[in-house]
This record gives sequence, structure tokens and C-alpha cells, in this order.
Amino acid sequence: MTSPQEPPRPAALPGHLDAGLLSPVRAGTPVEAAVGDSAWLQAMLDAEAALARAQARCGTVPAHAAEAITAAARAELLDVREVALAARETANPVVGLVKALTTVVAERAPAAAEYVHRGSTSQDVFDTGAMLVAARALRLIVADLRDVAEALGGLAATHRDTVMAGRTLALHAVPTTFGLKAAGWRQLVLDAAERLERIADGGLPVALGGAAGTLAGYLQYAGEGADPAAVLGELGAAFAAETGLAAPVLPWHALRTPVADLGAALAHTTGALGKIAADVLVLTRTEIAEVAEPSVAGRGASSAMPHKRNPVLATLIRSAALQVPALATVLMQCLPTEDERSAGVWHAEWQPLREALRLTGGAAHTAVELVRGLTVHPARMRANLAATGGQLVSERVSAVLAPRIGRTAAKELLTRASLLAATTGRPLAAVLAELPQLAGVLSRGEAAALLDPDRYTGVAGPLVDRALTAPDRTPTGAP
Amino acid sequence: MTSPQEPPRPAALPGHLDAGLLSPVRAGTPVEAAVGDSAWLQAMLDAEAALARAQARCGTVPAHAAEAITAAARAELLDVREVALAARETANPVVGLVKALTTVVAERAPAAAEYVHRGSTSQDVFDTGAMLVAARALRLIVADLRDVAEALGGLAATHRDTVMAGRTLALHAVPTTFGLKAAGWRQLVLDAAERLERIADGGLPVALGGAAGTLAGYLQYAGEGADPAAVLGELGAAFAAETGLAAPVLPWHALRTPVADLGAALAHTTGALGKIAADVLVLTRTEIAEVAEPSVAGRGASSAMPHKRNPVLATLIRSAALQVPALATVLMQCLPTEDERSAGVWHAEWQPLREALRLTGGAAHTAVELVRGLTVHPARMRANLAATGGQLVSERVSAVLAPRIGRTAAKELLTRASLLAATTGRPLAAVLAELPQLAGVLSRGEAAALLDPDRYTGVAGPLVDRALTAPDRTPTGAP
Amino acid sequence: MTSPQEPPRPAALPGHLDAGLLSPVRAGTPVEAAVGDSAWLQAMLDAEAALARAQARCGTVPAHAAEAITAAARAELLDVREVALAARETANPVVGLVKALTTVVAERAPAAAEYVHRGSTSQDVFDTGAMLVAARALRLIVADLRDVAEALGGLAATHRDTVMAGRTLALHAVPTTFGLKAAGWRQLVLDAAERLERIADGGLPVALGGAAGTLAGYLQYAGEGADPAAVLGELGAAFAAETGLAAPVLPWHALRTPVADLGAALAHTTGALGKIAADVLVLTRTEIAEVAEPSVAGRGASSAMPHKRNPVLATLIRSAALQVPALATVLMQCLPTEDERSAGVWHAEWQPLREALRLTGGAAHTAVELVRGLTVHPARMRANLAATGGQLVSERVSAVLAPRIGRTAAKELLTRASLLAATTGRPLAAVLAELPQLAGVLSRGEAAALLDPDRYTGVAGPLVDRALTAPDRTPTGAP
Amino acid sequence: MTSPQEPPRPAALPGHLDAGLLSPVRAGTPVEAAVGDSAWLQAMLDAEAALARAQARCGTVPAHAAEAITAAARAELLDVREVALAARETANPVVGLVKALTTVVAERAPAAAEYVHRGSTSQDVFDTGAMLVAARALRLIVADLRDVAEALGGLAATHRDTVMAGRTLALHAVPTTFGLKAAGWRQLVLDAAERLERIADGGLPVALGGAAGTLAGYLQYAGEGADPAAVLGELGAAFAAETGLAAPVLPWHALRTPVADLGAALAHTTGALGKIAADVLVLTRTEIAEVAEPSVAGRGASSAMPHKRNPVLATLIRSAALQVPALATVLMQCLPTEDERSAGVWHAEWQPLREALRLTGGAAHTAVELVRGLTVHPARMRANLAATGGQLVSERVSAVLAPRIGRTAAKELLTRASLLAATTGRPLAAVLAELPQLAGVLSRGEAAALLDPDRYTGVAGPLVDRALTAPDRTPTGAP
Repeated sequence: MTSPQEPPRPAALPGHLDAGLLSPVRAGTPVEAAVGDSAWLQAMLDAEAALARAQARCGTVPAHAAEAITAAARAELLDVREVALAARETANPVVGLVKALTTVVAERAPAAAEYVHRGSTSQDVFDTGAMLVAARALRLIVADLRDVAEALGGLAATHRDTVMAGRTLALHAVPTTFGLKAAGWRQLVLDAAERLERIADGGLPVALGGAAGTLAGYLQYAGEGADPAAVLGELGAAFAAETGLAAPVLPWHALRTPVADLGAALAHTTGALGKIAADVLVLTRTEIAEVAEPSVAGRGASSAMPHKRNPVLATLIRSAALQVPALATVLMQCLPTEDERSAGVWHAEWQPLREALRLTGGAAHTAVELVRGLTVHPARMRANLAATGGQLVSERVSAVLAPRIGRTAAKELLTRASLLAATTGRPLAAVLAELPQLAGVLSRGEAAALLDPDRYTGVAGPLVDRALTAPDRTPTGAP
Repeated sequence: MTSPQEPPRPAALPGHLDAGLLSPVRAGTPVEAAVGDSAWLQAMLDAEAALARAQARCGTVPAHAAEAITAAARAELLDVREVALAARETANPVVGLVKALTTVVAERAPAAAEYVHRGSTSQDVFDTGAMLVAARALRLIVADLRDVAEALGGLAATHRDTVMAGRTLALHAVPTTFGLKAAGWRQLVLDAAERLERIADGGLPVALGGAAGTLAGYLQYAGEGADPAAVLGELGAAFAAETGLAAPVLPWHALRTPVADLGAALAHTTGALGKIAADVLVLTRTEIAEVAEPSVAGRGASSAMPHKRNPVLATLIRSAALQVPALATVLMQCLPTEDERSAGVWHAEWQPLREALRLTGGAAHTAVELVRGLTVHPARMRANLAATGGQLVSERVSAVLAPRIGRTAAKELLTRASLLAATTGRPLAAVLAELPQLAGVLSRGEAAALLDPDRYTGVAGPLVDRALTAPDRTPTGAP
Repeated sequence: MTSPQEPPRPAALPGHLDAGLLSPVRAGTPVEAAVGDSAWLQAMLDAEAALARAQARCGTVPAHAAEAITAAARAELLDVREVALAARETANPVVGLVKALTTVVAERAPAAAEYVHRGSTSQDVFDTGAMLVAARALRLIVADLRDVAEALGGLAATHRDTVMAGRTLALHAVPTTFGLKAAGWRQLVLDAAERLERIADGGLPVALGGAAGTLAGYLQYAGEGADPAAVLGELGAAFAAETGLAAPVLPWHALRTPVADLGAALAHTTGALGKIAADVLVLTRTEIAEVAEPSVAGRGASSAMPHKRNPVLATLIRSAALQVPALATVLMQCLPTEDERSAGVWHAEWQPLREALRLTGGAAHTAVELVRGLTVHPARMRANLAATGGQLVSERVSAVLAPRIGRTAAKELLTRASLLAATTGRPLAAVLAELPQLAGVLSRGEAAALLDPDRYTGVAGPLVDRALTAPDRTPTGAP
Repeated sequence: MTSPQEPPRPAALPGHLDAGLLSPVRAGTPVEAAVGDSAWLQAMLDAEAALARAQARCGTVPAHAAEAITAAARAELLDVREVALAARETANPVVGLVKALTTVVAERAPAAAEYVHRGSTSQDVFDTGAMLVAARALRLIVADLRDVAEALGGLAATHRDTVMAGRTLALHAVPTTFGLKAAGWRQLVLDAAERLERIADGGLPVALGGAAGTLAGYLQYAGEGADPAAVLGELGAAFAAETGLAAPVLPWHALRTPVADLGAALAHTTGALGKIAADVLVLTRTEIAEVAEPSVAGRGASSAMPHKRNPVLATLIRSAALQVPALATVLMQCLPTEDERSAGVWHAEWQPLREALRLTGGAAHTAVELVRGLTVHPARMRANLAATGGQLVSERVSAVLAPRIGRTAAKELLTRASLLAATTGRPLAAVLAELPQLAGVLSRGEAAALLDPDRYTGVAGPLVDRALTAPDRTPTGAP
């Protein structure tokens, strides 16, 4: 008998490792490798190397040392698990990383060893590394979002005039078009992409503050006569140039705008993708069946039911959309951090930031596949439109009758007629035709024309046109 | 005996009303009146009136009717509680509002009554009203943030060279200046203000979609021959002009970017203010006492302890900073809303949005008072700097010794000397002076000079200068 | 033209008051009056009065003074707005409350005035008041949950054998019964009720700690010779007896278990009710139409569309379920509070706790109406079961064929047959009948019997029986 | 030059793996191996094996097949990464697991292969596996919490009478004892342990529902004549017995009480530990220095500053306490899941549940080390008590003077005297001695006695005694 009291058995994968088993939305997607522990370690090493090169540019580290440090700063030369374990002693992985990197450098170029991490502090290296990881992940995510938007643009154009039921509060409301729905999805995705690009384009700064944000250590190593203002300007610019990141106005050890911005934009992105998934899941329902996920052999299989083609892509995207806002909250809550560096608030950011990047990247990658392969069933949309026997257009009839019999009377009459149509299952046109109040007011022919859903799609077409031709960077509601 | 089994007794204020008792951070501040139920009701009425005027501009509503509706659209003519209660029957307050407004219009100008809410839908009115409320609240909040930033700029300039202990992980790290700390606070506040202004400046759109986002009702009332594209363009522009809000690319009933953006920026703002509060609370501690909140008679009184001057302003700000991120999460989680209008997801936004506006506005107003009146005690800062007998500058000594005795040896020597200084309570300089390894390496005079905190503030001064002269809209880390 | 630049106009309701306009889920429900500002003020006054009486029991306050304080402790004698505004000066409303109460007592019984709040501290009064409010609200909520569970028990029994499509990942899976669904809803509601009752029954303690949790003030007033252990035991017991609340092991000013427990249980409750709402919204969809909300004249009306009967009750419940978990998070995050009383963390609890009580109470009250009046359409359920032409029972055919043709072959054959049935729209039975592989393996008659959904409901009936007869306090999965 | 445009370089650890680099609070702790991907895979395999054995007990699977499945159900025989990647096609890892396990079984015992996962569904296996993982993790966590409580009991007893400043709103309030503080920490930890044990003891059920919660597949395989009620009772009991988990009243695929309960209790636990960390961080501050973390060579080292001994254990615990409530929110928000199994809501639970278990387990393990090795400095506590020159006891003097000169006069007098003492830096006793109002009212000797902090600790001692002798399962405030 197995019981909770027995220890788990040994397994091929060391017990401390995660391989994506519980997070299929990102398993195997490009973002996974870009933000994993090895990539993060490499990014911190890149930060150390770039710092040495920047100091070399400023003349405070010899060029050969910067080269040696750069050559040694390769994640595969370090044991990431050892660095992870060492972090328990210092509360961050950089102390152990510096020690390990220094050992590698010392073996290869002893004279360079003393220049590793010169004048620096753990947070400069960790935060710069985190921004490098974020920059790499954002590049992948934005590219996927652009692909999603392009595919949605195609769907919107193709289905500009494909009429379907507009649904509000779970019920058929008035007709709309699938083109307008797709254009809306696209707009949300462009909103998200725009927010991520705004961050990627200047919102990911190097961290350069030294022990408490004054750069005192860097200045000290710049020599006694060094001009503080010059050191500040030159070293910052050189570090930014060497990393490709932005140069901030102030050290941001305790000013966490970049991290909070990332959290907000990533949550926005999974929210936008989650809206698509939510709609796809509604429209996929057995009774509705207006769209279907791309059909791939084996995709969507159930372990029990042979007939199922589960909407797995929308399911995966939704699973990410439910997680990322909470992770973003953690990042927002880390803004009110105390002192020049917090004891714990800084440390709480790391895993949520990585997880938010990873889930968002997985969701965006999954969304490309979803929207590119989405099957749309216009015939089923038309069939569903007829489900309420014309009640869907009752608003229109009410508007037409208002000037003829009064607005209140018109709405009440339609309300009663719709109820009668619903309970008897008869078409609304038939019910209206028999109403004595409408004799001479609304002919049977006019009623039929009014109740044609195709003629009551408002400005759906022009809206699609406008959305598809609007400048790329003028999204839904924000500048 | 009182017991939980007894009903609460009658009170002067009707039981369903809130008067701010549990939220002192905003009680009595201007934002409170700007977002309360009456203000919200008025904003929705403003939306109805603006819609009528916009339709009048387009010729689909008579000018006299628009005037009559505008004249009647005053919150004091309606019973807000009645509207609130009616909302239980329809899940939103607009249906009842339209009914009540129509009654008022009908009494005053019977011919205008049929033009109330013409072609419209609840969400157009609610969301436009919400954006008007947000616009009014943001104006108050940004003005307060600008005042906070200005006061902080003054503190930063005044204390550009006021040396104090930099603190990391709860301990003295290396020296910094109060000027740099204040400049950092200011930068965070500018970041927040910039994000709010970006929203205020184009990110608060009118809602104009009709029943399911196609504007079909508006088009219907524009008459049979109306050109859809023209109606879309003209009506949208007119509504935007009448409200002062932006015109969106698409109806956003189910594309909630404006609300998600508000949530993120408001959480950012309380986070920025919360950082100030967190630092003030640390520096106010009895043992530290480097700053004090503005002294006002009666302020900060305890119900028990006569000697206390509680830091109430920072306390209130922190209480808001702990709440708003969670409210923003709700708003983010409402992005993945299903259909053309959700059953419940839209409705979940309202109260969190209002509460986030109110708490943020209260926190910003409180922060003006806090930073304008903050008392700074440079002498106490100097005294605290001496608390560790010079250990605070051990990093520097280590750097100086590195080229003389080797970097590893230097750091180990300082580690041991610091430990000895800490356990014996002796100054680090004295301990160093007795170390045989430093004989001939570091003179007593050089050690004393190196251990002077005033000489180890790095580029703190130039950083303050740079922050105070940076363009206003180039904040910490984001574009 | 109205614009955001104009101030909001004056309205009948003072601008600082909320009347429930943005929260229809609770507007007008009993919980609203039980937790509003007046009720909260009264509860704090009840705490002051009970404290005086408890001290009178212990002999440290004269009986006449306790009586006078009790008589004066009526919310209608105080100005709640004034108390709210005064709280800005002290960060909590109790300092102002004590002052106002003392004034009332002094007018009526001058000798009693000095005994108001004797030896006490703000947090003792606020927290005890909060627990009284919570006790009163929980009583209302649990009663509503019991009513919900009873109605669901009735639905489960009535529909024990009403077959409907079981749905997983948005698609028809295998048959189930509406009785089992209703029994599941009931079980979740019982889980929630059990958690709330556990709290109501001993988890709501008086707060009695004095200025920093040592009861030093109370002991001081007990006189020089008082025995500390006796004062602790007697005063605590007397205060508990006078309030009907529990006596905690330790003062809990900074040990916030009671508040965290409330948050968790309230989130659990709206989650349970939210599950019902989520299912009702699916089953209400125009294309599915298996259930309908109770029909009430005017209920569910749209401001635009005459034909709609919106599922407003489920919508309101869902709106609460989306908000309460975030409020509970705030309460959980307030557990790590510093010192003997936090500067801000305590203060952040108040409004979220009240809002969580109010939303949960509103949702529970709304749910009673929803489940009592829910209309179930078995005929529509049966019609929808046929929508996939028998594919819904493909799992069963696969199981029957497994021993005949091998498990893998059977599942593959059913997968292909289901796909063919789906794409051609033919019944699965017809497709199977023509498969050469099944000639002599599965007769047409056997296939028809196997594909009858009524014969494939597993143990749904016994599960309903078990759930309805299980002891009330043995819920789903937790003890 | 390295830039964000370059891809990350290859590293020793495959890019998709996590080794704990960003989560030092749990790196290397026992819980890490208990909840990692291998452990989770093993737990799901344990569920498959237990299900086969349970079916064997019931006679629906041959005993030899159950044995063969059990023998094959070893994680090291599967490729966890392959299973993880396959999950993208089906949205959960069980479909791939079943395929891989069946292959292993087929190789070893061909006749047994058809009995793998017989009649089952993915969610039965995943959820049962998750409960096994949770059971194993809870066992570790509770053991650590018991160790924490024991160490805190020792601290409370040792320091029962160690007087220190009680602090409220960041300022000295009145005296308390370190014993009372430690007793409070212990009580919170016992509260948390009690909640986790309640779940471990009956709140972790097997999942047994089949495709849509009716057990139809299981019943089908039990044979035509099988009695449904008997199958339900026997199979459920056997599965519970084979796993050591509880047997629920109903299948809980869509009734997520067990997961919501876990979230709440884990957040409670990190909150309790976070309270300890918050207090330790305050008391560790350079200026306060009343406690110190255990001193270990190399522990707490800074990458820059030789003198620092960072409070790393409290920092790590706090980092967990900031993350887990948000993860618990995700779990709470997954309660309102639609249908018999949700498309996405179920899937969103997995990673947050594992992360919450892992962070909580890491925090508990870290807390054992923190509290066992915590150094307490009573002399420093005493020195700090004197920091305000007696103002700390002003409450007491006020109480003594109240009957002599009136309560209001007494409080005002003490308020003024405290202010004078604070601004002049003179002892309160000296200020009081010179007040003409107190001539003949309060002698210098009496004032000195009153202002002795040792004599104003209230009932702190008896509170410690009561807490340490209270029954283990009667925590702070809840039953």
C-alpha cells in the first residue's frame, strides 16, 4: 500500500528540478528557455561582464581584465544548483555567483580576478540581469502578439460581414458580426503589444548604484581624483551601451517602477489573450459550435472520451490569464519597499516576475496557433441567429414603432410579444402579425424586413474598416 | 447584556450609508466628494445629457429636447438610493436612472421625454459616467502628486549634502544623503503622475456602442437613409466633444483597456506614496528619530498614551498602499470578459474602481501634508551614523586595502575587524590601528580619513542635481 | 458643454456618502444595514459599554457608571461623520468616539465620565466592535446559506434522475443528472456554511490588551494590590460574557488569526455561490436554455432590448465572487504585521473586511432567491443530449468494445467514428453500424442500447442519495 | 558587446529547467524535493497504481494486473519532460502519462496493459496525485512548525520577565516583555499548524469521478450486473485505503473545497511566519539591535560590505510571506469553476498550489533555524527602554494622577510634560518634579517608582504562563 507516510521514490529527474509538468501553457515554448534558471544565470553573468567592459571604457579596469571576465562569464562553466543553494546563506544568488565567477577567472587569467564585481553590489548585478532576461522575453512576446494581431486582422477582414448573434449577459442581444469581434480581439492585443513595446523601448534600465545607491564603491575604484559627476555620467552610459539597456535618472534599487510596469503590462497581455480564449470557449460549446480550434491529430484528446476534441489552446491561455494578475499584484505590492534595499520585498519579486514572463510568453505563443488555425462556421452562426425567432431584433422593431405608438407603449408591446414568442416557441413576426394594436401600424412585410438580422448590424462594417486602418499605435482607449 | 444575537440599534445615519468611518485616509478629502454615489450619479446624468446634445448636433434629436434633458439631468432631482435599489432588478443602475430621468423630463418638457437614452444602452451611459468620474478624480490626484513632487524637490535640494546612514536589509550599509532619498521619492511620484497623466490625456474614452457594440440603435434613430460610416464618425466625435473625453477606435464594452490601465496606474501611485510612508515610518522610530511628521495640535494622539505623537499621515498612506493593488487585480482580472457584455465581470469592476480612485486620492492628499511638513533632523542622522563606530564605511577601507594586500585578504581582514569592533563596541579605526597586518600599510590618520562618512557619499550630490534638473517627463526607468 | 474640468454639481445626498449605487448585489439586503457605518459605530459603542460593565463586574468601575455609559452608548447620539473626520488626526475612529461618548456621558451622568474607556486602548474597542459586526453579519449569512442548501436539496431530490449532458472543457462529455449537479452545489454551500459557523462558534474573540497587549492600564486601574493573574482571568471572562464573544488565549492586536480566518471563509463562500452562478449562466445561454432564473415582472429588463430577461441574480452573485478573494488577500497579507500594533497594516484591514462581509451577505441573500425560484427544463436537457447524435456516450461503447477488439483499437475506432459522425452530422449509431470492423462484433440493437444516455449515468443517483443523507457537517472534502 | 538582441548562450542546465535560483527560501529544503516535478509525477503514478489495486480489491481488475501496474508506476521509468511537453496537446499531463505508463506495463506484463487507467479520467489521477503531494508536503511543514513552536516556547519561558519597549505605530508605547512577544509568535504558529493539521486529517480526498463525475466508466467496467451503490461505496473506500487519503461525499472535480482550503491555510502559515520575520527585522535594525539572527560563518555576507551580517533568514521568510497570499487568491478564485470540469480554471490551480506548498515549506524550514538560533539581548532592550526618559510609562502616571487632579487635566498635563521632555531631552521625572501643578500631588520618589518600566508590564507574565499551558489545539482566536 502506498500512503502519504512513505517518502516519494527516487526519479530520473533530480527532485529539486522543474521541467514544466504543471504549466503546459509554456512547456516547450521559446520563452521557457529564455527565462529559465540557466538563462537567468547567464543574464547575470552578462551583467558582470558588461560592467567590467564599461569600467574598462572608463579606464578603471584594464581592458584585458574585462576581456577575461567576459570570456569566463558563461553559465555552462558554473553549477547553477550550487549557486542556488549558496543563495540561502546570503538571501541572493549574486554573492555565490561572484565567488564562482572569480574562481573561473582566476584559473584562466589570475590578474583579472580582482576586477570581478569591482565596486559593485549584488542588486546591481541581479537587477541588470533581470532586465536583460525581460528584454529577451519581451522580444519573443511582442513578436508573437504581432503575429496574433496579423492573423486577427485577416479574420476581421474575411468576416467583415459574417453576421452572428451579439451576446450580452449570456443571452442573444442584437446581431453583430464575427469581423467586429475579431477586430476587437485584435485591438486588445495591439493595446497589450503597445504597452510591452513602450517598456522594451526605454523602460528596462541597467541597475547601477553600488552598496546603497550612491555608486560610492565605483567612485572609490575610479581613483582619488575622479570627478563624481563625470564618473556618474560616463560609467552609466557605458554600462547602458554594453548591455543595450536604458540609463535611468537614478539608481532604482528601491524605486521599483520598471518591475511594477512589467507586472502591469504582462497582466494586461494575458488579459487581452484571455478575452480571446473566453470568447472562443463560449463559441466552441457543443450547442453553439460557431468556431472550432485548429484540428491537429491527437490534439485535444481526452484520456476517457474518444469523441472529444477539447479546446486545449484556449484552455491553456485561460489558465495563464487566471494566474498572471495575481503575480502582477505581488510586483505592485513590492513598490512600497523600505530603506535603500529592503529585507525581503526585493527578494519577493524574482520568482513572480519570471513566472509572469513565462506564462505570458507561453500564452502569446499558444495564441498564435489558436488564431491562425481557428475555424469559423458562418452557417452555424446564421442558424443560431434564428434561435429566438427574431426576438434578437426586437430592439429595432421597438424603435420603429416608438414614433407611431409612443416609446413606452412600443417597448411594452415588444416586451409582451417577445415573452409570448418565447413561451410559445413561435416566431416574433407571427406574434406581431396577430396583435390588434399593430393592425395598420406595422405590415407583415415590414415586420419581416425589420426582423432580418442581416439588416440590423449597425455600423459593424465601418467599425471593422476603421479598426483595420487605424494607425498601429492608436489602440482602444489609451494614448 | 449586549450580545451578537441582538440586532444593531437604530442610528442617526441610515444603516445603508457609508460616511468614511473605516477609511480615514480619504475621509473629508476632495476626492471623496468627487467619486461618491452622488457624483457618480451626476456623471451618468452628464453622460445622458451629453449624448442627447451629441445627437442634436447630428440632427437626430431636436435641440430643444437636448436642452430639456440637460436641464433635467441633475442628481439632486433623483433619489440615489431608489436608483441603487432598482439596480438589483436589472443588475445595473442605468435602467432605473433612465426611468427616473425620463419622469423628470416628462414633467418639465413632455415632448423631450422620448429622446432620453435614445438608441442607447446601459453600458454606454455607465462607462461614460465612470470615465467622467475618473477624469475628475485624476485631476485632483495629479495636482496633489505635483505638489508632493515640488515639496520633495525642495527637501532634496535643501538636504543635498545631509549625510545619513544608507540602510539595506535593515542594517546600516554605507552612507547616503537625505537629499538622495528625497530625490528618489520624488522620482517615483513623478513616475506615477506621468502614468496618470498619460491616461487622463486620451486614455479615458466615451462609451458608444449601443446594445451590442454595433451602434445599431443609434443608426436606427438616425433614419433609414443614414450613412453608417458617417453616423459612426459624427456621433462619436460629437459625444467626445460634449463630454471632453476621448473617442475610441472601437466600442470598448468588452475591451477593457481603459479600466485596466486605471487600475495599474492607481496601484503604481499608492505604491510610490507607500514607499515614502515606509521610509518615514522607519526613520520615525523612537530609536532612529531622524524625521518627524508635521506637528499639529491633537494630531497623532493616542487614546491611552499621553506621550505619543503617532505618525498618522504615513500610517494612513500605508493603509491605502496595502489595499489598492488588490483592487487593481480585480480590474486586471476583468479583462478576460466573455461575449459582447459579460454577466458579472463588468459589474465586478465598479466598486473596486471607485475605491481605488478614492484611496489613491486620499493618499495623495495626505502625502502633500506629510512631505510639506516633514521635519528632518540632520543632527540625529549624524549621531546615528556613528552608531557602528565606523563599520559603515568598511567597504571603502576594503577597497583601499585591496591593491595593497590583495582583495580577498582585504575583505576577510575587514570582516574580522568589523566583527571584533561590533562585539567589543570599539570604533573600527581603533581596531584597525592595532592589527599587525596593517602596520605600515594603513596609518591611523589615513584610517580616520577613510572612515569619515562625509567623505564616502559617492555621487549622491550629482545624482540629486541630475534628478532635479531632468525633464519632468523622464522618470525613473520608463519612457 | 459638460467637461471633466467642471466640478461635479451639488446633489441631494452629501457627496461623501455611499448608498450602494455601485454594488447592487448588496443594496437593500439585510447585511447592508448590519455592517454600515452606523452599525459599526454602534458596535464600537457596544464594546465600550460592555467593557465598562465587565469592569463593574470586577469591581474596578462603579455599577452606576457602567449603567450610565451603557445608556449613553447609542450611535444616534453621536455624529458618525464627525467621528469619521476626526479619525484623520489619529488614524483611527476610536479616539474621536471616546471623546464624543465622554461628552454625552458627562452631560447625563457627570460622575460616570471618567470611567469611559478606562485603562483601554483604541484597538481593544475597534477590534471588539469589528467582531460584533462580524458576528451579526455571519448570523445573517449562515441563515441564508442554510436556506440555499435547503432549496438545493429539494432540487437535487426532484431531479435525481433528470438526465442532462455532463460538460467538460466546454463540450459535452458524458451524461450526468441535474440532481447530481444540484447536490454538488449544495455540498459546496454546506462547506462554506460550516467554515463560517466554525468561526462564529468561538473564532470571534474580544480584544483586550490595553496600550501594548499587557493589559497594564486595566491592571493599573484595578488598584495597587490587584493580582495580575486574577485581573487577567476575571476581566477577560467578564468582557467575553458581556459581549457574547470568545475569550482568546492572548491579546491579538498583532496576532490576526480571527481576521485572516474571516477573509478565507468569506472568499470560500462567494466562491461556492459563484460556482452556482457560473453554472446557471452557462445553462441559461440562449442556445442551451436548460434553466431560467425566477421570472419577476420587470426583473432582468434591458434599457435597450425588449425581449431580454437577463439572468440578473447570477450576474450579481458572480460580481461578488470576483471581488471577495482580492479583499481576502488583503486580510491575509495583513498577518505579517510588525510590532505590538502596526502603523498601517491594522488600518488596511477595516474596509476590506467590511466590504467582504457585505458582498458575501449580499451574494448569499441573492442566492436564496435564485435557487428557490430556479426553473429547470428537463425537456430541453433531453433535447440537448441528442445534439451530438450519441457521441456523448462514445466512452461507453469504447469500454464495451475493448475486450472484444482490444482497448487501443477500440478507442481509435471510436475516435474515428465520432469524427465521421461529427463532420457528416450523422448519428454515431448509424456510423458504427456501417463499420466493417464491427460486423459481428456489435449489433445495431446493442449499439442503440449502449448509446442511450439514460443508461449511462453511472452512480449519479446513489451519489445524490449519499449527499442528501450525509451528516450536515461532513462536507465535500474537509473535516 | 552583449545586447538583448543576442540569444542567451547555451548552459549546462537545459534551458527549460528550474533549479531554485530565484527562490532561495526553498532551495535545498526538504519540501523542494517533495513537490518537484519528479515527485508530482510519482504521485500521479501512485494514484494510477492505487486505483488499479483498489479495482483489484473490488474484483474488476485482476490482482496480477494491479501488481504489474504498481511495479511499473515508477517515475524514473518515464521521461518527465516528455510528459510535460505532451501536455500541451491535451491541456493536462495525464493523457501522456497514461500512454507512457501503458507502454512500460505492456513491455513488462502485456496482459496488464489494458487495465491501466481503467474507467478513469485525467482529473481523477491528477487530483489524487496532487492530494498525495500535498499530504507529503504538509507532513514536512507541520513538523517544522511544531519545531518552531517548541523553540518559541523555550524563548517565551526564558524571557518571561525580560522587559522591553512595546512598540505601536512605530513608536515606544508602554513596556512589554520579550516573553510575551515570543508567546504571541508561538500562538500564531500553532494557529497555522492547527489549520494545516485539520486539512491533513481528512481534508485531502481521493478524486474518483470518471469522465464527468458520475463514475460511469468505473461502473461500466464493473460489469453489467454491478450494483451502482455498491460500486460507489466499495471502490471509493478501497481507493482511499490504498492511498491513505480521505473518501469524499461527492466527486470534487468541480467542487474545489480541498484546494481552496489548502490555499487559505498555506497563506495563513506564511503570514504567521512572516509576523515573526517582520518583528525580527525591526528588532535587528542597527539602532535597535535587541535580537540577532544565529551567527554562522559566511551567513549574511554582503557582496560589497565586509561589516554586514544581514538578517537573511528573516529576509527569506518575508519573501515567501509576500508571495503566498497572491497564490492563495488564485486558488480561491478557481472555486467558481463552470461545468463538470472547467476549461482553464482547473488548469490554473496546479502551479500556484505547488508554489504555495514549496514557499511555505521553505519558510517553515527556515523559521526553525531562525528561532532556534535567535540571540536575544536583554541589556540592549533595557537600554532602549530608557531612550525616551520615562515617557514610555506616561500612561501610568496619567492614570495615577487622574483621581487626584481629574482625568482630562492629568492627560493634558502628561501630554505637555512629555512634549517638554522630548524637546529638551530631559527625563520625564525631572520635568514632572518641577511642575507647580504637581507640588504636593506627586512626590519625586513616587514619580520615579511610577516611571520604572519594570513595574509596568501589566499581566505580561501571567499571559505567558497561560499561553504556554493552554491546550495545544486552542489557538489565538479560533476554535
